[in-house]
Amino acid sequence: MDNNFLSPQRCSKVLANFLSQSGLHDSGDNSFIFYDIGFLKLGISQLQTSFPASALHAIALKANPILAVIKKLPAFGVGLEVASFPELHLAVAAGFDPEKIVFDSPAKTMAELEFALAHGFRLNADSFAELDRIAGIIASKGNHGEVGVRINPQVGSGTISITSVAGDVSKFGIPLRDHKEALQEAVFRYDWLRTLHVHIGSQGCPLPLLTEGIKKVVEFAVELNNRLHQKGLSKRIHSIDIGGGLAVNYYQSANWISFEGYAENLRREVPALFDGSFNLITEFGRHIHAPAGWVASRVEYVKREIGYTIVIIHVGADLFLRECYHPSDWHHVISVTDSKGRLKTGRAASPSLIAGPLCFSGDVIARDLYLPEIEAGDYIIIHDAGAYTLSMWSRYNSRQMPKVIGYEGDEMQFELLKKREEPFDLIQFWS
Amino acid sequence: MDNNFLSPQRCSKVLANFLSQSGLHDSGDNSFIFYDIGFLKLGISQLQTSFPASALHAIALKANPILAVIKKLPAFGVGLEVASFPELHLAVAAGFDPEKIVFDSPAKTMAELEFALAHGFRLNADSFAELDRIAGIIASKGNHGEVGVRINPQVGSGTISITSVAGDVSKFGIPLRDHKEALQEAVFRYDWLRTLHVHIGSQGCPLPLLTEGIKKVVEFAVELNNRLHQKGLSKRIHSIDIGGGLAVNYYQSANWISFEGYAENLRREVPALFDGSFNLITEFGRHIHAPAGWVASRVEYVKREIGYTIVIIHVGADLFLRECYHPSDWHHVISVTDSKGRLKTGRAASPSLIAGPLCFSGDVIARDLYLPEIEAGDYIIIHDAGAYTLSMWSRYNSRQMPKVIGYEGDEMQFELLKKREEPFDLIQFWS
Repeated sequence: MDNNFLSPQRCSKVLANFLSQSGLHDSGDNSFIFYDIGFLKLGISQLQTSFPASALHAIALKANPILAVIKKLPAFGVGLEVASFPELHLAVAAGFDPEKIVFDSPAKTMAELEFALAHGFRLNADSFAELDRIAGIIASKGNHGEVGVRINPQVGSGTISITSVAGDVSKFGIPLRDHKEALQEAVFRYDWLRTLHVHIGSQGCPLPLLTEGIKKVVEFAVELNNRLHQKGLSKRIHSIDIGGGLAVNYYQSANWISFEGYAENLRREVPALFDGSFNLITEFGRHIHAPAGWVASRVEYVKREIGYTIVIIHVGADLFLRECYHPSDWHHVISVTDSKGRLKTGRAASPSLIAGPLCFSGDVIARDLYLPEIEAGDYIIIHDAGAYTLSMWSRYNSRQMPKVIGYEGDEMQFELLKKREEPFDLIQFWS
Repeated sequence: MDNNFLSPQRCSKVLANFLSQSGLHDSGDNSFIFYDIGFLKLGISQLQTSFPASALHAIALKANPILAVIKKLPAFGVGLEVASFPELHLAVAAGFDPEKIVFDSPAKTMAELEFALAHGFRLNADSFAELDRIAGIIASKGNHGEVGVRINPQVGSGTISITSVAGDVSKFGIPLRDHKEALQEAVFRYDWLRTLHVHIGSQGCPLPLLTEGIKKVVEFAVELNNRLHQKGLSKRIHSIDIGGGLAVNYYQSANWISFEGYAENLRREVPALFDGSFNLITEFGRHIHAPAGWVASRVEYVKREIGYTIVIIHVGADLFLRECYHPSDWHHVISVTDSKGRLKTGRAASPSLIAGPLCFSGDVIARDLYLPEIEAGDYIIIHDAGAYTLSMWSRYNSRQMPKVIGYEGDEMQFELLKKREEPFDLIQFWS
């Protein structure tokens, strides 16, 4: 196993074994989503050893909501971060305790807030209006939850605008510079407000930007606690929730920032997160799930045009939504195997365009790739596809979601994590 | 009813009636997708009277696959165009006969082709390789279907690249200029190849571009039939399938091209489509479904920031995928009602940003809008949202799909076309 990615060699070996030995596929399958459970565990272990043992690592469920995958996580002591009420229920169904579930959403309804507070979930308010609602519920019904507030440190945006949330204008959180006084008043007023939550972004956000945003919010927490101390009151802010993630090595580069490197940087720049001053909560998702998952899709047709080759496979903007809609922001290493899963090498004379099966011209996963010679029946492998792919599945053209297959270790015991959808499921879905 | 769109006045009146009288909503609803069935019927009637009575209008199922809506269509004598094998089954479940179903997909498998040919569906091959597969199946098992071939007339792209499919490089069809000889050979060789299919694009494609592409393919069909005649053989190309659509009036402008205007233009430029030389097949979808559907979503929070207001509603990139990912290409008129559905007027001092509930900063439906003063509990109405919205539904954040409500005429008899999803449905989905 490679250090921080599953290489083409490794994935093709798994595919070849799967096709020849697993008995888990049939003629109705044209694509498979693979999940390396061992690699997932390795990522969690690297996360846990990089940060203080007391930290709550609430893995972002939105990165990968496959129930059979999520069910494997409570055993490792981690938690889940959820972004909607159904995700909250999914987390409970997967076996997580409410105190390990962090409910983030900018659109929580009264009913959702009442439920979360009554049953002991953690939640982060996104606005003053939400804090006021929470105050009303707590006044009338009491509080069993842990409440935080999301702060936008206004430190700027990364290179990918849709995953950057800490610019001057953002739909998320309360802007620190613009509302510092009011934030301080809210913390003084509400003795149940004990967590500050900060989220800068994930893919495309450089390390100094992430660190700067977290540092600002920790400094604000220290300042708040000091003021309370001066008034003879006890410490109020107990926890810092560092939302947002760490960029994934989508280019499979030799050098990349690991959890360890990120934590080292934070330890140096924001020591209060590591010295016991605060409970630490993290919300990584992409960095845990993306490298553990990959996709193999069968080549249905090869169209050889003048100067280029079009390769039609069975997944497109349904599974790789952001890759197709914002191709300049998202990249995956792509490799090719023959119909038995054996890695192909060499380089065809003309570049390839890897297109999905959907009826719109933007349904293209990659362009201008110099790949080996490809023929119908081969498999295209799309690497590092375990996060923000299946979780964003789009119903366009009502295609069948492929099987999800788990495996672990060199023995490669294959396990069906999720069934392939059948045409009948789609009829049900639209009924 | 307005001539070619449902105005804010009309929609707010429907919403007010629905909220006060229908009994079809409860406290768990935060958004509704409305469908004006009468307006849908009007669109179909305008389509049918604009083109020859013998034309087969195969409505694009991918624009709107709600079964209860689709089931209303066979009574009008139209057909369906389907873009995947599950869509084909959905069309059958909705009550369409196979000879009224046109199966288009660039990724049809052998099993799918065998099924379609055995059961009498229409299908359009996308490549020479697919034609060869079809030839093999017909040779061994016979043919009950109607087979066409998709031709890319290579006339250029419209303003929206993802919905333009007739540029020099396209994943769809066989390029006419580059492969004219081989196409002619294929038609001469395969006596079951009797339809030419052409698709230029839809939204963003100007009328002259659409007309030019269709004209080129019709001229090619006439040329092929003439050559066969010269050889003493009978006519081979019997049908022309004009895929692609007609742009929708998303700005609700006073003047817009109607089916009638489009047909008049075609009648002048490509008379062979109207004089009985060919059977005509159309594949409109957007122009039929978009103006008949609209969305009302409750404002959950209003965040007043310096110089702008953020309005958080309950639908975002899950329902309005293209609008959020490519905001400069897609537009909807947006209006505001109070909590009872009464239209609000006036103009607030600062511009609004209408944001969805999803956890990424790109989840914004519209920016810089000068709307009336908005408060929590109001409804935001998003107009002309009946096509390529729900059909592209993305699972991101696993939110519950809202109810779909139909109504008809001034009596507004409301009908539940599709239930709201519950958290349990999401647990099932990811299991």
